[in-house]
Amino acid sequence: MTSTLSELLAVEPLDQSLRDELQHLIDTKTKPPGSLGRLEALARQLGMIQRTTRPRVERPVMIVFAGDHGIANEGVSPYPQAVTAQMVANFLAGGAAINAFSGVAGLELEIVDAGVATPLPPLPSASALVSLPIAPGTRNFAHESAMTRDEAVAALAAGAARVRHHAALGTNVIGFGEMGIANTSSAACLMSRLCNVPIDECVGRGTGLDNAGLARKRNVLAAALARHANVREPIDVLATFGGFEIAMMAGAFLEAARLRMAILVDGFIATSALLVADTLAPHVRDYCVFAHASNEAGHRRMLDHFGARELLALDLRLGEGTGAALAVPLLRAAVAFLNEMASFESAGVDARSEKPNGERAH
Amino acid sequence: MTSTLSELLAVEPLDQSLRDELQHLIDTKTKPPGSLGRLEALARQLGMIQRTTRPRVERPVMIVFAGDHGIANEGVSPYPQAVTAQMVANFLAGGAAINAFSGVAGLELEIVDAGVATPLPPLPSASALVSLPIAPGTRNFAHESAMTRDEAVAALAAGAARVRHHAALGTNVIGFGEMGIANTSSAACLMSRLCNVPIDECVGRGTGLDNAGLARKRNVLAAALARHANVREPIDVLATFGGFEIAMMAGAFLEAARLRMAILVDGFIATSALLVADTLAPHVRDYCVFAHASNEAGHRRMLDHFGARELLALDLRLGEGTGAALAVPLLRAAVAFLNEMASFESAGVDARSEKPNGERAH
Repeated sequence: MTSTLSELLAVEPLDQSLRDELQHLIDTKTKPPGSLGRLEALARQLGMIQRTTRPRVERPVMIVFAGDHGIANEGVSPYPQAVTAQMVANFLAGGAAINAFSGVAGLELEIVDAGVATPLPPLPSASALVSLPIAPGTRNFAHESAMTRDEAVAALAAGAARVRHHAALGTNVIGFGEMGIANTSSAACLMSRLCNVPIDECVGRGTGLDNAGLARKRNVLAAALARHANVREPIDVLATFGGFEIAMMAGAFLEAARLRMAILVDGFIATSALLVADTLAPHVRDYCVFAHASNEAGHRRMLDHFGARELLALDLRLGEGTGAALAVPLLRAAVAFLNEMASFESAGVDARSEKPNGERAH
Repeated sequence: MTSTLSELLAVEPLDQSLRDELQHLIDTKTKPPGSLGRLEALARQLGMIQRTTRPRVERPVMIVFAGDHGIANEGVSPYPQAVTAQMVANFLAGGAAINAFSGVAGLELEIVDAGVATPLPPLPSASALVSLPIAPGTRNFAHESAMTRDEAVAALAAGAARVRHHAALGTNVIGFGEMGIANTSSAACLMSRLCNVPIDECVGRGTGLDNAGLARKRNVLAAALARHANVREPIDVLATFGGFEIAMMAGAFLEAARLRMAILVDGFIATSALLVADTLAPHVRDYCVFAHASNEAGHRRMLDHFGARELLALDLRLGEGTGAALAVPLLRAAVAFLNEMASFESAGVDARSEKPNGERAH
């Protein structure tokens, strides 16, 4: 069931063989060429990922990975660590934003305990939880590595296994979300080290730090990066600064790309997991749809790293996969126009004339 | 059945009485305050429009108004005028982009012949067309007024009547689209005159003019504005430069606002109709959701005129209501989080602490 690291990394570059055929189909639909803007590129990407001129959105899934972080002890979040478990219970009870948005988007929603520190409150529907904890929270990377290398690899494999589970059920579009108090601290350190960006440009207010809290967070993370200055190899960077939910997301990104799914990328934390995955296997990004630009400082720079432009600009900064979920209807729209629209020829609509004088082009 | 102009203009300002209650509900949902970004403002607006803390999206409708333009004779579009009728047939046959997107969004789609110049091709499903032509296309405003004042008022009333029809069926969210070869020329002149903006800043490539075509369009429209330099009264501006589909959209905006519907604003042409409506009754904009920013030059400046920011940045420039249709899932998401999310209290989730040190706020 579990994969070795080398199996996880077998991500192929995006197959380009249908690119021209897809572009021709798109250009002959009954609309001025290019007038559907970025949905045209999205339709083409979905066709290339699925290796068909008739791509579909089948059984789309959102997996939310939850885990706790030792770095929370340094006072880097305004919320207590117990909120991670409480929010997992809220997901299972259907009361969180990602529940509401999954309903609207027609997404299957799965919640994975990747390593929550505090016991979950008793819940009637607790059986819906996929319980794969690596440990009850990571260690505090201000002092020591957040996890061992073995734990990091186990988390990557566990995330990959959840993706395989859904692939077997027919899923071809998948997104990943997260919950974990203090995980913007993890993500900021991963970004700083993997992208070689000064930590101050990676640190934001997270769930809502004030100026003093933000300054404290910056100092804590700068010191942690200095303490682990020699850690450079991607898996070791993940083990040192990551979280169990981030590591599982990274494994999920790898496996989804290997299985040629379209992958919805959420905000700052999810994109930090993609940074890990794409560093390990550089074609993962080919399968990604960058759903939105988070208001968390640093996310814009991550998007620039991938040369990506977001589909939605809603000033979200919640996580949970909410931005990714909101982009699902845009994927449905992209495949709908490609599959359902008539061509100029089939609809008997005149194409544009060569000269703008009302004469028909031959 | 028809309304007088003064009846159409009875648009009330947005009722603010539930604003604080809605904001409190939004702020106590299980998420950091403000973290759902612009969806929070959207949920509040929908609640205020519907005068309830539990707003809904009920039977959403897209009405596409089609009409032809005498100004097309001046060579301002690369497509022949016959394309308007051909695209109406395409809408009725289900082969256009707005058909695909309406399906994804769960929108009822209605096509209105507001004044198409050429006969429609024979169609099995032609009975689905709502046929309310004012005349077979407008006159050429390069030489004379596009329509009479009576025709403009009749078109406003006809658009309003279609909105009342859907309101009676339970619709509380509505959007308007259009089809009409050369109607970016109409829209640019309406914008220039109503917003006092030089015509060169209002004129774009439309369906895809080349540089020579763009220069020609600018010259034609500058001359037309000069010819009608004394026309300043809004209804006369509409009659002089408008189209039947634009006038019907303007009437539809007025009536939808009067009936306190949430109104989805599409791109350049639809927003030019909103300019007319909002000039006539300045609170229409309170009921509007600005769906997207078109790539047609001038739309950004129109949005600035309304102090509006778009929800979607997809580089669309198609019209037909496509951008408005794509925003419907965001309205569904906004009401879903407001209606379905738990509060911190109901979910037993700790609120943020006063100090970022892990201690719980009292």
